[in-house]
Amino acid sequence: MLMPETISSAANPLLKEVRRAVARGGLTAEGWCVAETPHLLDEALRSRCRVKVVLAAESARGRLPRLPGVKVAILPDALLQRVSGTETSQGVMALIEPPEWKLEQLFQGKSLVVVLDGVQDPGNAGAILRAAEAFGASGAMFLKGTASPFNPKTLRASAGSLFRVPFLFGMEPALARAAIEERRVALYAAAPARPDQPMRSPADVDLASPCGLIIGNEAHGVSREWRGAAREISIPTVSVESLNAAMAAGILLYEARRQRTRLP
Amino acid sequence: MLMPETISSAANPLLKEVRRAVARGGLTAEGWCVAETPHLLDEALRSRCRVKVVLAAESARGRLPRLPGVKVAILPDALLQRVSGTETSQGVMALIEPPEWKLEQLFQGKSLVVVLDGVQDPGNAGAILRAAEAFGASGAMFLKGTASPFNPKTLRASAGSLFRVPFLFGMEPALARAAIEERRVALYAAAPARPDQPMRSPADVDLASPCGLIIGNEAHGVSREWRGAAREISIPTVSVESLNAAMAAGILLYEARRQRTRLP
Repeated sequence: MLMPETISSAANPLLKEVRRAVARGGLTAEGWCVAETPHLLDEALRSRCRVKVVLAAESARGRLPRLPGVKVAILPDALLQRVSGTETSQGVMALIEPPEWKLEQLFQGKSLVVVLDGVQDPGNAGAILRAAEAFGASGAMFLKGTASPFNPKTLRASAGSLFRVPFLFGMEPALARAAIEERRVALYAAAPARPDQPMRSPADVDLASPCGLIIGNEAHGVSREWRGAAREISIPTVSVESLNAAMAAGILLYEARRQRTRLP
Repeated sequence: MLMPETISSAANPLLKEVRRAVARGGLTAEGWCVAETPHLLDEALRSRCRVKVVLAAESARGRLPRLPGVKVAILPDALLQRVSGTETSQGVMALIEPPEWKLEQLFQGKSLVVVLDGVQDPGNAGAILRAAEAFGASGAMFLKGTASPFNPKTLRASAGSLFRVPFLFGMEPALARAAIEERRVALYAAAPARPDQPMRSPADVDLASPCGLIIGNEAHGVSREWRGAAREISIPTVSVESLNAAMAAGILLYEARRQRTRLP
């Protein structure tokens, strides 16, 4: 790492900018995303993302990984805690250049694309990305109105998967739909089971072929424009209660993986 | 509801007790659990749990459900926000008498018992209970060292399932194991996939027969005392990354349900 500088004032412009990014749940003005834990810094390094700045509490100084060429700032512990969005800061935060992806990269291999259609909770959005990586999804689309992939809480819940799964964000639904349809990728929408209707379970559809899985808003489900374009699938539950959006996404992705590794 | 009383001071003994329960993540001194949202109050009523007290913000007064025989206290909005454990109070909190269950009730029907073995995060513990209800688990065991089922965050993440799924808490592992083994319930432990070992996938074992699923600690997995007693199963993922504990539990429960509804 470069010679560490010391920051001792909450008025430091960099700290103010990080605090603003945490508060609004997005990137810093320079376009960097805020990784709030040492684990996420490790994930960024392992994923070959560019680390721009590391903020370390004095007490964590000895625990920093090797950071060749990276600017490091040392802060009093209490000051780092004030900047951090977590309840208890783990002493290390980092500013990371987010990876950039092209649409084509989301469809590589046998496409399995997750479409986040109005998922509000960044914890859910991040957990969906984590499951997407675990089950080999080819990419993810964050449609307009979905939590930001660059919200520090999204990054945290993704456990670093956001550094590796190809994704696009702020997408217009019409563009996303055209991209999927022109590649002849089958579209499925996660829907709550309705007790009065026969439902199509994920085990009954072909998720081994190229497909897109639409995960809707926590309260209102998938938005209307997708309903005609996608076949609804419902995870069979005992009661009519809906599952948490991230859980539903994880189960659909598990099912896709199960089918893909079973079939020849 | 009874004639509402008004609370205007943060020094009110009931409010202080609720704040303490939220802070320590447990029951109030009277043994009531804290439901932080109007949705959870509805769930408690629907689940026929006894509602002891409802705290309502002045602005939410008109939105209260029917509460025959229930004590209601009206508070200034700012005061309720101070008591609430949520970032933005939804204007209604309630103190609920938690249901009490007998061991036998956890095994009713074709047993499917979830064993929480050191799950630390109340959000995970609650999400596991929510999935347990969705997929028809017969009961849940919170072993010693696991997040409290009565942590308001557990209740919130369970979306009310904690009012309905039979559970015991603070259980000694030896007692839990004896209870399971004497009923000839097969034990499976969720384990991260190890790249160097052939793994047993949940689709390859018989989860349609009576079984117990052990979900371990987020960092260290299932504790040593269970390893000899349970067969390990690993959810097949693409990378070696482990899934979030709640996600893993939900997928195992989905798989159990899938097998149970397929088989005759």
